[in-house]
Amino acid sequence: MSDQEYMKLAIELARSAEGQTSPNPLVGAVVVKDNEIIGMGAHLRAGEPHAEVHAIRMAGEKAKGATIYVTLEPCSHHGKTPPCADLIIASGIERVVVASTDTNPLVAGRGIGRLKDAGIEVETGVLEEEARRMNSIFFHFIESGLPFVTLKSASSLDGKTATVTGESKWITGEEARRDVHVLRHQHDAILAGVNTVIMDNPSLTTRLPGGGKNPVRIILDSTLRIPLDSHVVMDGEAPTWVMTTRRADPQKMADLEAAGVQVVQLDSEVLDIPEMLQILGKKRITSILVEGGAEVHGSFLSAGTFQQVITYIAPKLIGGKLAPSVFGGEGLKQISDAVSLEIEEVTMVGKDIRIVAVPKRS
Amino acid sequence: MSDQEYMKLAIELARSAEGQTSPNPLVGAVVVKDNEIIGMGAHLRAGEPHAEVHAIRMAGEKAKGATIYVTLEPCSHHGKTPPCADLIIASGIERVVVASTDTNPLVAGRGIGRLKDAGIEVETGVLEEEARRMNSIFFHFIESGLPFVTLKSASSLDGKTATVTGESKWITGEEARRDVHVLRHQHDAILAGVNTVIMDNPSLTTRLPGGGKNPVRIILDSTLRIPLDSHVVMDGEAPTWVMTTRRADPQKMADLEAAGVQVVQLDSEVLDIPEMLQILGKKRITSILVEGGAEVHGSFLSAGTFQQVITYIAPKLIGGKLAPSVFGGEGLKQISDAVSLEIEEVTMVGKDIRIVAVPKRS
Repeated sequence: MSDQEYMKLAIELARSAEGQTSPNPLVGAVVVKDNEIIGMGAHLRAGEPHAEVHAIRMAGEKAKGATIYVTLEPCSHHGKTPPCADLIIASGIERVVVASTDTNPLVAGRGIGRLKDAGIEVETGVLEEEARRMNSIFFHFIESGLPFVTLKSASSLDGKTATVTGESKWITGEEARRDVHVLRHQHDAILAGVNTVIMDNPSLTTRLPGGGKNPVRIILDSTLRIPLDSHVVMDGEAPTWVMTTRRADPQKMADLEAAGVQVVQLDSEVLDIPEMLQILGKKRITSILVEGGAEVHGSFLSAGTFQQVITYIAPKLIGGKLAPSVFGGEGLKQISDAVSLEIEEVTMVGKDIRIVAVPKRS
Repeated sequence: MSDQEYMKLAIELARSAEGQTSPNPLVGAVVVKDNEIIGMGAHLRAGEPHAEVHAIRMAGEKAKGATIYVTLEPCSHHGKTPPCADLIIASGIERVVVASTDTNPLVAGRGIGRLKDAGIEVETGVLEEEARRMNSIFFHFIESGLPFVTLKSASSLDGKTATVTGESKWITGEEARRDVHVLRHQHDAILAGVNTVIMDNPSLTTRLPGGGKNPVRIILDSTLRIPLDSHVVMDGEAPTWVMTTRRADPQKMADLEAAGVQVVQLDSEVLDIPEMLQILGKKRITSILVEGGAEVHGSFLSAGTFQQVITYIAPKLIGGKLAPSVFGGEGLKQISDAVSLEIEEVTMVGKDIRIVAVPKRS
């Protein structure tokens, strides 16, 4: 097997832990000697051993003289676990193949440097693009300090999210709705506007067969109109944070806090999206799934603050000049102002089309 | 090679004449003897020889004892050309493999009957689905007497056809726009509303490298507001038919006719889409590409009179509650009223996504 094939396996191992490693990245490792796999590992959860540790442990004595394939540069610093670079050196491994270097300022080339100093052959950049993409949340957060924002939407083929009378259940099919729960599992937080809470009273939890991680529920509510008896306030299924402004009523704030809700008050009249993202980044939220509605999506579009768009398109036509679309608000004036995206993936999810797009790099 | 493989080739031959055979179907034929191709043909243009004629002519004397693969049941009636069934019998061919039978009442099993009566082995249904789909326009027209209607649209990923200020050039990329010219080439007629003519003054012709067939230009204009100096009236590039109502001004009608435009007046106050399609069917229009705008699309949606939807989705976000969508008009009230489609094809055209959908068979 080639370096690429072993690295592909390491990437698959890493991916298997998607949604459970935050704030750490997904990492996989494979140890190979004489064209035989002697160790495999993945990082499963923050605080637990890194991928390299599992893989080298599995290889045991055989690691001497072997090659390790690892999707991310091995760490060189003492965090919750000792440095992997040291472990690799101690194991007798002679060659390290790395997909992507770590842009975490605590690592940033130092892991590789340490290995080379110890006389180990190091090769980098094998399937780098794929490995970086798998950790786009991690890299974005580590490089900007801001959460990675995914805008999620579901519409008919003609771009409608509801009929002209406001009916919206169910546009997409069961498979697409289930896919959304996988997205919830994969993000640290889910974000919705207070209008969605008032109208639909959703629980915003992850409902997957066999469970799943509930994201922190973030509600944008500049005047604290959120009903005290709504699911997100009452059910205790996951933390709920309400983002509000100076216009919030202190009594309502106290009531919400008494109900166990965390109220985050910005020192302004309107909810400024970039400012809010800064605050959430400081609170270690590395990723947010923005579910809408239209006004919330519109705010993120105007602010230009998103890293990914996931759109489910149902094979239906709804029509109607006044039927609502994905993005509310004012919109952009000219085609040249439109946000240019790159389509990363188009797949069928049941009978719906799923499109993953990212803002075009300029 | 298997029957399927030879039939696949026959289908490819047929497809090569897409857009040039109307009102006739696409047909391809391959003659095979001792596992060797000895003749190939396709129907290229109405009035010219059928696919079987070309293929048998190419095979010559060798046809004796051979097998012919033909994508549509050979004809048994004298039309503009003599019956192909007779030619096959005379050629000495011993086996005929047919993809789909012909639902044209003039043929409908009689071609196959004639061959069998002559002692020829006939097999049907090989790649039938594919062969029928390639001629969906032909089958629809022959079975209903109505034109096959394709609704074409182009929007941003969030379903907008223009910005809130009305700007719409260019949402999709060059490749998608060129693809639309291929669609024009493949349809007998192109249909647009008078508002589109007033606002954009399009020529609605086929502009492809190396030329292409111009469709008949059909303009919906219930009160004859079309400007006499618009391209479709003046340029003489293709026939222009204006569909109007009792509300049309007789003088304007005379002016248009003097300019070479055909005015078709319906005996009603509003343009009824089903009635109009009946008239166009009688005028031997087998297919119509509906390009819009939004109100025209909305009328076809409400009337439920379309057989195909081709949507180009550009990797852009425009937003805006009031920015226009593909379908104008009232739209459907409930999700359960929405027109259910089946996605037939999702492909990339340049950087845009092209979705082909058909109404779901109930």
